[in-house]
Amino acid sequence: MAPGVSAPLHFPVTLVVLLSLLGLAVGGKLLVVPVDGSHWLSMKEVLDSLRQKGHDVVVVTPEVSLHIKPSKNYVMKMYPVPFTQKEMDEDFQGFTKDLFEGGSFLARVIRLYQRSKKTSALFLATCTHLLHNKELINYLEDSKFDAILTDPILPCGQILAEHLSVPSVYFLQQIPCALEYQATQCPNPPSYVPRVFTGYTDHMTFLQRVMNVLYDIPNFFLCDVVFQPYARLASEFLRRDVTVPDLLRQASIWLMKIDFVLHYPKPLMPNMILVSGVNCASKQLSQEFEAIVNASGEHGIVVFSLGSMVSEIPMKKAMEIADALGTVPQTVLWRYTGPTPPNLPQNVKLVKWLPQNDLLAHPKTRAFITHGGSHGIYEGICNAVPMVLMPLFGDQMDNAKRVESRGAGLTLNILEMTSQDISTALRTVINDKTYKENIQRLSDLHLDRPIHPLDLAVHWVEFVMRHKGAPHLRPAAHDLNWVQYHSLDVLAFLLFVLLLSLFISFKCCLCCCRRFCGKKGRTKKAAKSKTH
Amino acid sequence: MAPGVSAPLHFPVTLVVLLSLLGLAVGGKLLVVPVDGSHWLSMKEVLDSLRQKGHDVVVVTPEVSLHIKPSKNYVMKMYPVPFTQKEMDEDFQGFTKDLFEGGSFLARVIRLYQRSKKTSALFLATCTHLLHNKELINYLEDSKFDAILTDPILPCGQILAEHLSVPSVYFLQQIPCALEYQATQCPNPPSYVPRVFTGYTDHMTFLQRVMNVLYDIPNFFLCDVVFQPYARLASEFLRRDVTVPDLLRQASIWLMKIDFVLHYPKPLMPNMILVSGVNCASKQLSQEFEAIVNASGEHGIVVFSLGSMVSEIPMKKAMEIADALGTVPQTVLWRYTGPTPPNLPQNVKLVKWLPQNDLLAHPKTRAFITHGGSHGIYEGICNAVPMVLMPLFGDQMDNAKRVESRGAGLTLNILEMTSQDISTALRTVINDKTYKENIQRLSDLHLDRPIHPLDLAVHWVEFVMRHKGAPHLRPAAHDLNWVQYHSLDVLAFLLFVLLLSLFISFKCCLCCCRRFCGKKGRTKKAAKSKTH
Repeated sequence: MAPGVSAPLHFPVTLVVLLSLLGLAVGGKLLVVPVDGSHWLSMKEVLDSLRQKGHDVVVVTPEVSLHIKPSKNYVMKMYPVPFTQKEMDEDFQGFTKDLFEGGSFLARVIRLYQRSKKTSALFLATCTHLLHNKELINYLEDSKFDAILTDPILPCGQILAEHLSVPSVYFLQQIPCALEYQATQCPNPPSYVPRVFTGYTDHMTFLQRVMNVLYDIPNFFLCDVVFQPYARLASEFLRRDVTVPDLLRQASIWLMKIDFVLHYPKPLMPNMILVSGVNCASKQLSQEFEAIVNASGEHGIVVFSLGSMVSEIPMKKAMEIADALGTVPQTVLWRYTGPTPPNLPQNVKLVKWLPQNDLLAHPKTRAFITHGGSHGIYEGICNAVPMVLMPLFGDQMDNAKRVESRGAGLTLNILEMTSQDISTALRTVINDKTYKENIQRLSDLHLDRPIHPLDLAVHWVEFVMRHKGAPHLRPAAHDLNWVQYHSLDVLAFLLFVLLLSLFISFKCCLCCCRRFCGKKGRTKKAAKSKTH
Repeated sequence: MAPGVSAPLHFPVTLVVLLSLLGLAVGGKLLVVPVDGSHWLSMKEVLDSLRQKGHDVVVVTPEVSLHIKPSKNYVMKMYPVPFTQKEMDEDFQGFTKDLFEGGSFLARVIRLYQRSKKTSALFLATCTHLLHNKELINYLEDSKFDAILTDPILPCGQILAEHLSVPSVYFLQQIPCALEYQATQCPNPPSYVPRVFTGYTDHMTFLQRVMNVLYDIPNFFLCDVVFQPYARLASEFLRRDVTVPDLLRQASIWLMKIDFVLHYPKPLMPNMILVSGVNCASKQLSQEFEAIVNASGEHGIVVFSLGSMVSEIPMKKAMEIADALGTVPQTVLWRYTGPTPPNLPQNVKLVKWLPQNDLLAHPKTRAFITHGGSHGIYEGICNAVPMVLMPLFGDQMDNAKRVESRGAGLTLNILEMTSQDISTALRTVINDKTYKENIQRLSDLHLDRPIHPLDLAVHWVEFVMRHKGAPHLRPAAHDLNWVQYHSLDVLAFLLFVLLLSLFISFKCCLCCCRRFCGKKGRTKKAAKSKTH
C-alpha cells in the first residue's frame, strides 16, 4: 500500500496565455493583500498555482518590502510608504540585536515591547498608506475582483474586502490573541488546547491548566490595545464603527497552515481548511550545492538556518556555535550573512542563502538546525529530518516544544546555550535513531493525504471565487451574543422556573399544612369545649 | 471556471486479481460489520471501491437480512440468528403499519415505543449471536485484519474491534442520543445546533433554545437504557467493565455522511471526515425505464419512493396519493409493492423497484417525492431535483425540515395530508422556479469539492490500515473528566484564591483600622485624661 500522495495538477501556462491573448477569460480575478516576511513565502506558492490554473492575480504591496518581489505570475501594484528600505532593514536587524542583548528579564521584556511597538507602527503606516492611496483604491474599485486572498495577521486585507464588497479567503498559521477562534466561533477549550507562548503540550498538569486559563485574561485587554489602531482606521475608512473581530468574522474560508502531526488535535469549524505542507515540493539542487553535498561523504550534511529575519548574531554566540559545529563529522551548511567567526571549522560552509527545502529533501541530510519558524518546521517534517531548535520569538517556542514533545528534535535556549549544549544536542539527534524514527513517522502521516495541500488551497480560493463566498459554511453562532451562545439566558430562565415551581409548591404545602393544622386545632378546640 | 469535481479513480480489478493469483499482496485486509437497511447501501459503494484498490474485504452478516447480499467484491461470513426472514420482514412491515394507525398521540407513542423495543431486541439478538459464535470469532481472530469498518449506530463492530485489537473506522450519518459528539469530544452547543427530532433550524427563538436544551436531558437517562444491554454484552464478552461511549471513543476515524449544504454548520473534530455524496454516481437507465422517461414528453417525470423500508401503506392513504398524482401532467414513477389503488391515474406507473439515483439524474425528472431518508435526500441534492417530503420516522423529520428551510422542497405530514395538499405541494415544487433554483444552488455547492467523497472515504480507511489507526488525531480531551474538560476545577481554585486574597486583605485592613483607631482612641483617652 503506497501512501496516496497526489502531486499538484497544473493547468498548462502556455494554454492560459494563449486563451488570454484570444480574449477568452479562463479564470477569475484575485486580489492579494499579503504580509511580508516568511508569511509571504508559502502564499507565493499558492499564487503561482492559481496563475497556472488561469486566474488573474493582482498583488498590492508597499514599495519597501523584505521578500515580496515581482513575478510573471502576478501583477504587482505598489504604493509608497513613509519609510525607506534601509529604515525597515534596520528595524528588523534591531529586532535580532535586541533579542541577543543581555539584561534582566524586565529589561528584555521592555526592550522587546518597545521594538514590537516600533515594528507595529511600520505595519500600521503601511496599511494607512494603502487605504489612503486614492489612485490605487480607485483602480481596485474598478477592477471587479472575484475574491481577496490575505493573511489576517494584519487586518488590512479584510478592510479592503469590506470596502470592495468582495469575499475573502485567509491564509495563516495563527493570529495574535487567538483571534482566529473568536472570529470563526470555534471552541478552544483551555483544558487541553495550550495557549500561544505557554510552551505547554495538550497534556497539562493542574497548575499548567490554571496558568493556561490565566493566559487568556490579558488577551481580553491587550488585544483591544493591539488592534485598536486598525479598528479606528477601518471605522474611518469604511465610515461605520467596526472592531477587528467584526471584520475577521466576515472571512469565507480560513486556509490554516497547521497539521495535527505537529499541532495538538482540537475542534475545527467547517470553514477552516488545513493546508500545511504547501511549501514542500522540492527541486533538484543547483550544481554548487550538489557538489558540496556530494563531497560530504558517508557522514552527510547538516542544514543550519535561523530564518530569513535573522541575518547576524553577536560574534561571541557565533563563535560558540562554530565551535560546536566543528565537533560533528558532517558538513554543515550555515546560512549566515554576518562576519565570519574566526574559529570557523573546516566542515562548516557559510552561505548567504541556501535552498533550504531542496537541501532538506536530499537523502544525505542528517539534521536541521532551525529557529523553529512554522515554514521551516514543516519542511523538516516533510523531509523527515531530525531537528535542533533554537527558537527566538513569536510562535517559535511553541513550535519547538511541539517538535520536542513528539521526540523528533531537541530545543536549546539560544541565549543560554553553551558550545557543549549545541554539540550534544546535534550529535544526539543525528546518532540516536529514535529521533529519525519519530520524524519519519510524523513525515509519513503528514504526507499521507488524499489531496495535495496546494491543490486544496487552490480549490478553496476558486470555490470562493465561483460561489461568491461560502455562506453555507458560516455557523449561526455569529448571530448570537456571548450570553446566548453559552445558553446562559436559557439556564437562568430554567433556574427561575425551577425556583418558582419550588416556591409555589412550598407555599401550597405550607397552606395545606396550615389549613389542616388549623382545622385540627379548631376541631380539637371544639372537642375540648364540648367536653367542658 | 468548471467545478473541480474529480471522478473516483479505480485500480484495475483485473490487475488486482492477477496479482492476488500470483500470491502478491497489494492491499490490506478489512473486516466489515455493517448495519442492515439503507445504512448498508452507501457502505457497499465504499467496499466496492476498496476492493478495486486491491484490498481483501470480509463482511460478517446475519443469515437473515434485508439488503446485505453476496458480491464478488467481498467474502461474506454469515452467522445464524434466532429469527427467520419472515419474522424480520413482518417486524419491519409492522413498523410501517403502526406508523399509519390512528389513535391518540399517547397511543401512537406507546405503539412506536413497543415496536422499537421489539426491533431493538432483534438487533441485540443479532449482535449476541455474532459474539457467541465461537467458530466465526476464531476465524476472525486468525484472520489478522488491518482495520474494521462499521456503522456505530449498533456498537457490535466496535466490540469486535476491541476484542481483535484492530483500529476501527466508522461510517455513519448520526447515532442515537448524539453519542457521536460525546464519543469524539466534539463541542455541540445547544444554542445553535438543533437536537435530533426537534425539527428546529440553526436559528432558534428563545423558547426553541429552551426546548433544545431540555431535549438533552432525557438523553442522559434514555441512552443508558438504550445502550445498557450492549454495555452488558460487551463487558461480558471483553471480560472488563465498559460502557458504549467508552467503546465508541476508540474509533480512529468517523466518516460522516453529512454536508453543510444540508446540515447546519457546527464544530467538527479532526478525525471527523465528511463524505456525504458517496452514493451519487449515476448509471445509464435500463431500456425499460428509459422508454418510460422518453414517453413522458415535455412534462417529464416525477420519482416517488418512500424508501426500502416501506413496502405498503393503508389503501385509503394510497388512494388519496393516487388522486393527487393524477392532477399533474408529469408521468409519476411510484415504487410501491402494495395492492394497486383502484383509482390509479393513467400517468402513474407502479413499480416494485426503481433505479432511484439514475432516474433522479435524468434531465427530464421534475420532482422527487421522498420520505426524507438521508440517502435519498443527498441523491436529490446531487441531481438538483426539488422535493416533496413525507417523513415517517427517525431523522427523516429533521432532514425534511432542513430541505424546506433551504427552500428546496415542501414537507407534508403523511398522516394528516389530504389529496389536495399533495397536489398543491407537488405542483408548487415543479412550477415555482425558486425551488429548482435553490436545489440547483445546493447541488452546485455540494458537487464542488476538491476530491470525490468516495475517494476520500477510501483514503481514510486505507490510512487507518496503513498506520494502524490515527492516534495523532485523537484529542487529549479523552484523558480529562467532565469537570477537568470544562475547567471547573481550575475556576473553583481561582475563585478560592480570589476569595482568600479578599478575605486576607479585608482582615489586614480591619487589623490596621483597629490598631489605628485603637491608638487614636488611646491617644484621645490619654489626651482627655491629661486635660482632666
